[in-house]
Amino acid sequence: IEEQKDRELRKLLNEFHYADIAEILDELDLEEAIYIIKLLDSETTSDVLMELDEDIREKVLRNLSAKEIAEEIEELDTDDAADIIAELPEDRQQEVISNIEDQEHKAEITELLAYDEDSAGGLMAKELVKVYETWTVAGCMRRIRGQAKDVTRVHSIYVVNRQNKLIGRLSLKDLIVAKSDNKIADIYISNVDYVNVHDDVEDVAKVMQKYDLEAIPVVDDNQTLLGRITIDDIVDVIKEEADKDYQLAAGITQDVEADDSIFDLTKARLPWLFLGLIGGVGAFLIMEGFQDSFQKYAVLFFFTPLIAAMAGNVGVQSSAIIVQGLANDDLKGSINNRLIKEMLLAALNGTILAIFLFLFVWVVDGNMNTALAVSSSLVAVIIVAGLIGTFVPLFLDKRGIDPAIATGPFITTSNDIFGILIYFWIAKLILGI
Amino acid sequence: IEEQKDRELRKLLNEFHYADIAEILDELDLEEAIYIIKLLDSETTSDVLMELDEDIREKVLRNLSAKEIAEEIEELDTDDAADIIAELPEDRQQEVISNIEDQEHKAEITELLAYDEDSAGGLMAKELVKVYETWTVAGCMRRIRGQAKDVTRVHSIYVVNRQNKLIGRLSLKDLIVAKSDNKIADIYISNVDYVNVHDDVEDVAKVMQKYDLEAIPVVDDNQTLLGRITIDDIVDVIKEEADKDYQLAAGITQDVEADDSIFDLTKARLPWLFLGLIGGVGAFLIMEGFQDSFQKYAVLFFFTPLIAAMAGNVGVQSSAIIVQGLANDDLKGSINNRLIKEMLLAALNGTILAIFLFLFVWVVDGNMNTALAVSSSLVAVIIVAGLIGTFVPLFLDKRGIDPAIATGPFITTSNDIFGILIYFWIAKLILGI
Repeated sequence: IEEQKDRELRKLLNEFHYADIAEILDELDLEEAIYIIKLLDSETTSDVLMELDEDIREKVLRNLSAKEIAEEIEELDTDDAADIIAELPEDRQQEVISNIEDQEHKAEITELLAYDEDSAGGLMAKELVKVYETWTVAGCMRRIRGQAKDVTRVHSIYVVNRQNKLIGRLSLKDLIVAKSDNKIADIYISNVDYVNVHDDVEDVAKVMQKYDLEAIPVVDDNQTLLGRITIDDIVDVIKEEADKDYQLAAGITQDVEADDSIFDLTKARLPWLFLGLIGGVGAFLIMEGFQDSFQKYAVLFFFTPLIAAMAGNVGVQSSAIIVQGLANDDLKGSINNRLIKEMLLAALNGTILAIFLFLFVWVVDGNMNTALAVSSSLVAVIIVAGLIGTFVPLFLDKRGIDPAIATGPFITTSNDIFGILIYFWIAKLILGI
Repeated sequence: IEEQKDRELRKLLNEFHYADIAEILDELDLEEAIYIIKLLDSETTSDVLMELDEDIREKVLRNLSAKEIAEEIEELDTDDAADIIAELPEDRQQEVISNIEDQEHKAEITELLAYDEDSAGGLMAKELVKVYETWTVAGCMRRIRGQAKDVTRVHSIYVVNRQNKLIGRLSLKDLIVAKSDNKIADIYISNVDYVNVHDDVEDVAKVMQKYDLEAIPVVDDNQTLLGRITIDDIVDVIKEEADKDYQLAAGITQDVEADDSIFDLTKARLPWLFLGLIGGVGAFLIMEGFQDSFQKYAVLFFFTPLIAAMAGNVGVQSSAIIVQGLANDDLKGSINNRLIKEMLLAALNGTILAIFLFLFVWVVDGNMNTALAVSSSLVAVIIVAGLIGTFVPLFLDKRGIDPAIATGPFITTSNDIFGILIYFWIAKLILGI
């Protein structure tokens, strides 16, 4: 296809959706991708750019002039435009912005760039349909025809008063159903959900999910309407958040993908493995400290991987369920009640498992005391592991730290050490050495 | 508030959004909740019912007669109605359905109940705005006013031909902007995305995310328009899917929440802990098998928790990244390339960690041979763990099994055993025993 058959290629590409073109480009090498991008008309190019994989987009943009980028930017909605500019190096940002010809677009993008990426302001678009309460339905329809050209999808029409303060909403459906000489003031719905421009995007996501909204207006501290956030951006936020928590639970920091370079993957994985190494060294030191006491109970040492694994598993289970409850805002009751519940749960699970372990050790080792020591310390280890797994994320959350870091290697490592320590203490107590 | 002051309470509740009322009811005890539900007007009740926690909804419904439930059902959109009925016990389902007065609603709900819960049919609603290509814009507007009453939010207007086959779409915006004597056939957009009624909901979610759609029409094998799926339902699917994968990675089966009963939580957690127990027993048997060879190298046994932990961590890291890549459909290239990459990555990480471990053992134990044995087997263990973590989810996925079960305890346990086995083999080789 790459034989410079421009016309045929262009015709072929026109039949594809931009998301599909982006997928094809992700697979091509850079030169080919740039060649194809220059072939597309500028509206399609800008949409394709938005859908490209971040790494590839960065490379493509590096090969376009500031003027060419500015042309693409003109075609994009303000939120997407701001996102792309924010990805550029500092000095190019200014260059690209100064090349945008549409003054209004330029001012809006500059405004959006000023907001924190993780706030409602960083996610919102300036494109929206706004009507004043004093307009009539007929006048409204006329003006909406004008405004709607800039807006890809009209979700809601926001109603403002003269000071541009948000006072309500209207749906296109309401407008169509209303008589044409009605005043907007008579037909609008004053019950409107909105978020503040400084709200955290995760909170915005929760509000939109709870009320099943497809778009939400964004206001400043004076209730002035600034922009709107649509559900498709929120879907991305939810997906990213879930991916991040999942990776943290697996001991991977930073947003990496399977196709990133070995260097990036090492950077994301090695620190957690290092933590595991330190935990293992801790376990070694504990075992070395106890070695004299257990000259005749060498068998006890053979159970340390079992104890460590169970402590780790229970810790991860209880922390994961707490982290998820916190993320979904459905944890009720006090920390104390939660710890008591986890203790009962761990005691129940622990006892069932300990019975099996007791029988196994008794049969294999023939010594009931050893069996008793191993299995009863398993119960204690499981209870402590469950409590640590429950307490740590709740504590981090209270302190305003993301509780998701408490899952995975962090909890596994600390539980390994505590587990083995408790195991040897109890064994020593029961065996009376 | 519970002093039977009905009128005041009703007034107060009228000011709340139904999602907020549901949240309040989740916290009340059952009698109070039912009391309040009977107080609400039937439209609000049905919306509140949809938002209630599943366990509580079940209890509330048990306390309502089939006729009362049928009345709530009449107020709900077909998709929500079908979901609620599907939750009821078999015999009550029939009773409730026969109590629905609106014959069309009844037929539509019965149709939806026939589809698999995890298919597009199980998620779609029958409410949609449909126009025939032969209509004019003016006639269309008139009829949409009628149809739109049943539809909470008009996303897109679907255009069908005489055989009710989907041929395109129109947005309300297009309709407003068009001249009133235009024919629909002249202005509709024939490029319309759709899904088949038997498609898996996860695939529907991927399509809607990829193309940033807010609603998608559902057709049967003959392209006949059957219903539509809206993005708010997809948001729930994405969230549930992410929660499920997260729980599987943490060793929790079934959809449990922190507030579920201890019995439910035990059922979800115990099987995975049992798996861990078996792994631990396996490790014990391996160590017991090697005990004679290591009379003079007791120190080697003190490193087994470290080896097991590292094998587990690496396995979870590499499987998580593969599972995520599979879920997001962004894995390219062959399995072999992926295994080679993971091997290089593991070798790099392993070597860095092994250098630290070598120095530690040398300093603490004073024996360079032991240090060499422990650290070089660490490298081997990490490589094997990485390969298992990469291979198993890819293999399961090829076999059509959800690769997410390969994360968490499953991979940890198998890696513990393999890790310790490899560790002792290599140590035996290097120390020449």
